[in-house]
Amino acid sequence: MSCDLMALATTGVQSLHPYEAGKPIEELERELGISNIIKLASNENPLGPSSKVLAAIEGVLADTTRYPDSNGFRLKKALHRHYGLDSHQITLGNGSNDVLELIARAFLNPGDEVVFSEYAFAVYPIVTQACSARAVVAPAHEYGHNLQAMSEAISDRTRLIFIANPNNPTGTALKHDELVAFLNAVPEHVIVVLDEAYTEYVEDEDFPDGLELLPHYPNLIVTRTFSKAWGLAGLRVGFAAACADITDLLNRVRQPFNVSHVALAAAEAVLDDQSYLQRSVELNRTGLEQLEAGLKAQGIGYIPGFGNFITADMARPAQPVFEALLREGVIVRPLAGYGMPSHLRISVGLPEENDRFLRALKQVLAC
Amino acid sequence: MSCDLMALATTGVQSLHPYEAGKPIEELERELGISNIIKLASNENPLGPSSKVLAAIEGVLADTTRYPDSNGFRLKKALHRHYGLDSHQITLGNGSNDVLELIARAFLNPGDEVVFSEYAFAVYPIVTQACSARAVVAPAHEYGHNLQAMSEAISDRTRLIFIANPNNPTGTALKHDELVAFLNAVPEHVIVVLDEAYTEYVEDEDFPDGLELLPHYPNLIVTRTFSKAWGLAGLRVGFAAACADITDLLNRVRQPFNVSHVALAAAEAVLDDQSYLQRSVELNRTGLEQLEAGLKAQGIGYIPGFGNFITADMARPAQPVFEALLREGVIVRPLAGYGMPSHLRISVGLPEENDRFLRALKQVLAC
Repeated sequence: MSCDLMALATTGVQSLHPYEAGKPIEELERELGISNIIKLASNENPLGPSSKVLAAIEGVLADTTRYPDSNGFRLKKALHRHYGLDSHQITLGNGSNDVLELIARAFLNPGDEVVFSEYAFAVYPIVTQACSARAVVAPAHEYGHNLQAMSEAISDRTRLIFIANPNNPTGTALKHDELVAFLNAVPEHVIVVLDEAYTEYVEDEDFPDGLELLPHYPNLIVTRTFSKAWGLAGLRVGFAAACADITDLLNRVRQPFNVSHVALAAAEAVLDDQSYLQRSVELNRTGLEQLEAGLKAQGIGYIPGFGNFITADMARPAQPVFEALLREGVIVRPLAGYGMPSHLRISVGLPEENDRFLRALKQVLAC
Repeated sequence: MSCDLMALATTGVQSLHPYEAGKPIEELERELGISNIIKLASNENPLGPSSKVLAAIEGVLADTTRYPDSNGFRLKKALHRHYGLDSHQITLGNGSNDVLELIARAFLNPGDEVVFSEYAFAVYPIVTQACSARAVVAPAHEYGHNLQAMSEAISDRTRLIFIANPNNPTGTALKHDELVAFLNAVPEHVIVVLDEAYTEYVEDEDFPDGLELLPHYPNLIVTRTFSKAWGLAGLRVGFAAACADITDLLNRVRQPFNVSHVALAAAEAVLDDQSYLQRSVELNRTGLEQLEAGLKAQGIGYIPGFGNFITADMARPAQPVFEALLREGVIVRPLAGYGMPSHLRISVGLPEENDRFLRALKQVLAC
């Protein structure tokens, strides 16, 4: 057939480069022919799943042949108990990636502009481009969001602003007062998306809680995930919280069965397991301290971070370091795709995993 | 805030009416204050899950804190074993709903046209509208696809055609020769989506297998689901099969972790459990015969169907019949939303469920 199929795609999709996921351990073991690999590459929870989650999944397995509850009635009740959110404020997603995409699809026409920061989460440019909209990237300040620059990037065509707090892959965080000042200044025709995927890890008193800001800003959407501190990355569940009108729009584009029955049950169960969350946060705090001390001892700089990872500056091209670590059986994340070719992002693991990374790094850098 | 948030949405989303899912049993029990409800409303597999599926899920639960394999390596290998598909032909989806949406998003610009049949699956108009594209609905022939009318509906602006074979909610099926003649006549700038969600149930020799047609039509996409005969509706997994170029485009818009780790493992396992599929198909065949005989005995007409459901003509407004059945604890699906206000769609259940429906219907119609 002579027809050029690629030319039939939308303009945005024709030039879209998809997200590159970290490789699963199994795939690397196949490729490298080694075993006993540790993965500190995808900001996953090293604790393993909550036992309450496992019990909840067992409890719904007999229903596997049935469609999930399209409305997520029980999970929304649990979100109400824990966050005071009403069901008309909640959009459930197949991970928070799904709700980020729903937001883009609900609001972006081809040619509309989307503002986000340099070094911000890779999904923002992808969902923008997939809608044939235009990304306007504001320069960062010390690897963090520069809200002044983001304000100045807003135009009449701006429809969305994405803010990650804390940000991935840099770990930087905005304080309450600067975020509020920014929200107060954003024009009302612009929707602000506050992506709080890592919020549960932050123990700083000046750190804002997007859910508390919601009542004051009808144009604000807060996104959360169960993939990080709650330990459900494999099951895919997250949510957006917003006013009723925005929630209505997002639910129109949501696939009716976008969250599986096991994900609904698991998320509901883990919300009732606050001790799991507490252990996740404690393990993360001590792991971050361990990694920071270990890097300092080796004279390696890092970005002070608030998530469940640390972003370190190798002060040389990081790709060969990444590859040498791989051969030592340690997977971390190179950040050249984010315009940070000398940095590596290391997820906080168990104490022995953090230690193994630090020892492997020392050995690799000594070569 | 004076700003009208709804006006900020895209044109398509502003007038989008989302899919209405069948109510979960639990929700109806709450609403009606009754128990012992049977659900024959969502074309689910009445067998319950395969024991191999349950074992496979158990086997991956410890990985719940890890992201799923973004590339679905093992499931694609299983699809290769069973269907001869190569990985560059496969796009995995969060149910086939997800791949139908990916197709729309990859190819539809605002104002593009999409052709599908009257009485076809409700997701086609939804994904079309969500992309601000225009639905061109071809009149049906005896509740089935009228391929002649669909051909005539194609214009220069047509980008996609959706064909459901068998169709939901009518159960009608196209034969091999008429489908091939249609495909031969479709202009090469038009992508044909052949939705085969119910294909496993069809035992007719003249029935086409879209996967066998693929090598001959670069503009053909075949979609399949694990939600029906394979019994995995709760877990959300399906796939699209197409040529490499189309698969590349679809994977660009696919969320990297759109299929959960349990869904990947379950689909892989059930593909290796052909006896489950065989039992599903046999149970469906005898159930369809039971429902047809029961309806005939009550003098009720139905559309001869090939799926795992039967669409019956109440010869009166069906909504009151639906509601009366509900009060008897039997959930079926009214089809007024499809423009079929006198029809009900009844999913094939277990023999005792089919019997209970038939008895309830007799009682309700006698009132």
